[in-house]
Amino acid sequence: MRIMITGIDGYLVLPLTQHLASLGHEIAGVDNMLRRKMVGEMGSLSAIPIEPMAIRLQAFYDHFGDKLRFYQGDVTDYSFTYEVMREFKPEAIVHLGEIPSAPYSMINVHKSNQTMMNNIVGTQNLLFCMRDIVPDCHMVKLGTMGEYGTPNVPIPEGFFEMEYKGKKEVMPFPRIPGSWYHLSKVHDTQNIMFACRIWGLRSTDIMQGVVYGTRTDTFKDDPRLRTRLDFDEAFGTAINRFACQAAIGMALTPYGKGLQKRGFLPIRDSIQCLTIAINNPPKPGEYRVFNQFEEVYSISDLALKVKEVGDEIGLNVQINPIENPRVEKEDHFYEAEHRCLLDLGYKPTHDMKKELRFMLEDLLPNKGRISSRSHSLLPSIRWSGKRDKCRPL
Amino acid sequence: MRIMITGIDGYLVLPLTQHLASLGHEIAGVDNMLRRKMVGEMGSLSAIPIEPMAIRLQAFYDHFGDKLRFYQGDVTDYSFTYEVMREFKPEAIVHLGEIPSAPYSMINVHKSNQTMMNNIVGTQNLLFCMRDIVPDCHMVKLGTMGEYGTPNVPIPEGFFEMEYKGKKEVMPFPRIPGSWYHLSKVHDTQNIMFACRIWGLRSTDIMQGVVYGTRTDTFKDDPRLRTRLDFDEAFGTAINRFACQAAIGMALTPYGKGLQKRGFLPIRDSIQCLTIAINNPPKPGEYRVFNQFEEVYSISDLALKVKEVGDEIGLNVQINPIENPRVEKEDHFYEAEHRCLLDLGYKPTHDMKKELRFMLEDLLPNKGRISSRSHSLLPSIRWSGKRDKCRPL
Repeated sequence: MRIMITGIDGYLVLPLTQHLASLGHEIAGVDNMLRRKMVGEMGSLSAIPIEPMAIRLQAFYDHFGDKLRFYQGDVTDYSFTYEVMREFKPEAIVHLGEIPSAPYSMINVHKSNQTMMNNIVGTQNLLFCMRDIVPDCHMVKLGTMGEYGTPNVPIPEGFFEMEYKGKKEVMPFPRIPGSWYHLSKVHDTQNIMFACRIWGLRSTDIMQGVVYGTRTDTFKDDPRLRTRLDFDEAFGTAINRFACQAAIGMALTPYGKGLQKRGFLPIRDSIQCLTIAINNPPKPGEYRVFNQFEEVYSISDLALKVKEVGDEIGLNVQINPIENPRVEKEDHFYEAEHRCLLDLGYKPTHDMKKELRFMLEDLLPNKGRISSRSHSLLPSIRWSGKRDKCRPL
Repeated sequence: MRIMITGIDGYLVLPLTQHLASLGHEIAGVDNMLRRKMVGEMGSLSAIPIEPMAIRLQAFYDHFGDKLRFYQGDVTDYSFTYEVMREFKPEAIVHLGEIPSAPYSMINVHKSNQTMMNNIVGTQNLLFCMRDIVPDCHMVKLGTMGEYGTPNVPIPEGFFEMEYKGKKEVMPFPRIPGSWYHLSKVHDTQNIMFACRIWGLRSTDIMQGVVYGTRTDTFKDDPRLRTRLDFDEAFGTAINRFACQAAIGMALTPYGKGLQKRGFLPIRDSIQCLTIAINNPPKPGEYRVFNQFEEVYSISDLALKVKEVGDEIGLNVQINPIENPRVEKEDHFYEAEHRCLLDLGYKPTHDMKKELRFMLEDLLPNKGRISSRSHSLLPSIRWSGKRDKCRPL
């Protein structure tokens, strides 16, 4: 299949591309190389050293031949997007080329506008090009479970049958997102739904939980193809930050009460799920939502798991909660459905501790890199708009 | 009160500004003069001749003294918005400075992106400036009833109590908007709701029906202060187009079956309602939604009413339905609540026929202007992306 993948320089995308290339798909990889700049802007770097794109491309060629064509450019530039799609004529687009950080979007008005414009315009350009060039193409779009927020009711997969004043209708489930970034994803969701409705396009919108881990089943044993792992307050998830803190002997710092619950899945499962979505396209005109995660943990649970694994290998991990820079519920109901992917054959791996052990194994040799940027592990971007380091509780 | 009004060169806004100035409020009027350019781009003009802004400002001064300060600029330019707000320190913002056209947003990818960026970034800039300069300010934001679309359930005012799998929660009512323009308004709605939640800002989000009419109770009898009336396919509403068609002896052209139902209110009622909203601000941190319309009509009802009024004054009005350029339900359930404004004292005028008579009276002297641009009355912007004139059914 001809698959166009945006954001190919990203954490999840590089291994996904290897997996799809190893299955024989033809890949057009697109990236504007923004992620590296943004992490640099946070005064940080990837804990695991990564190669420049040119070296990665050479490694791809060595392993997969000419299965990958790389287009450096920005999907928010319509003429660029149009040319890539006109030339490559994708049968599927895996759209992962968005700015992925809630804290980054909360820094100030400029980061908020940048995140919103980048994500919305990029997706719009892809939708219009699909309509005009490849109307039968399937867009697999990366959304996030964070679009739903944390309502006091169970979360379905995108839609629910509502009853109001005696009448019934299947409606999109209301979203209560928690940052400008999450809002940009909700806006995408509504825009894609509309494009499918009026133009007969097809899309799978993936509400993905937090992805973690450093290894996948299809990683070639080639250091040139290692993917990034961020730990700064903007681009590092809680689990990445905890693993990096454990690796350098710094106390883990859950935010606030730590009872915030989220869905998680290892990167190898994410790749499995995205591949399932690609292989099982919806009907023309169909817009569907998959909730893609495996298990729900609270942030405190996560910290305890990292401590347990770290202690097992002699790291003596401490946990010191700090002020929560976010405005969010710290103790709440959380229950989300996630049947669609299981029904299509997703086999969860269910072993967070094993993945955490791999993570620590891969991070320990890079202690020096992490230590040199350890300031970026502690949050200063507050949802209030103020920016100063959060204090221990 | 110090009231900042964006989009002051617009149809509804010029008379609103006169009304608020006549009540003694201090006004900061903002406009980027985009509307005139966009209507020109459609090859059209205002049916009622309007003066350049400099003449309008002189007329304002003659009637109201220095109650109005004008700032020409674009709210999507953050530094401009910041300077206006730092200098004027508004107690209320009436945000009507958005691109208001569904068809315009459907022309192509560029108009879609322009509409979305203009509307979203403008609102975001205002919200950030409120947070940093006037956190107690009340934003009255113009949304549209079109944000809800036409679901098969009654439409509440913004929120509803839902029950799902045995648990209950008050949630935003799901929106199913029908164009990129309407989507931009839904995105605004969600962004404003979030800003109120995390920053304690306050806002009234007005879901306004279709506004019509050429007169208000507070119009000064000064031709320099007449407001625009658009009739082209992008910026003219159905009712404006029908009135202009009747005036020039052209058959009225409802789209498709004509059973599409919408909420309507005359411009004098809209001004009354917006004034009520300004005078009754929500509590700090409160985000509330008012559905602002008076009566529901189908497009066929509207055409028949224009015909009735036109025939009474000897115009011999014909009705010739044409292809529907839009993708929309042409026959559907429609029931929307609108209690909030009535509870605050809104007195509906309930006389569409009288308003239509005024409209025709004001349009007949301008037959030549309308006839010279009569091509712009017939739609060519199709939701499919094609652009060719719709044919009679």
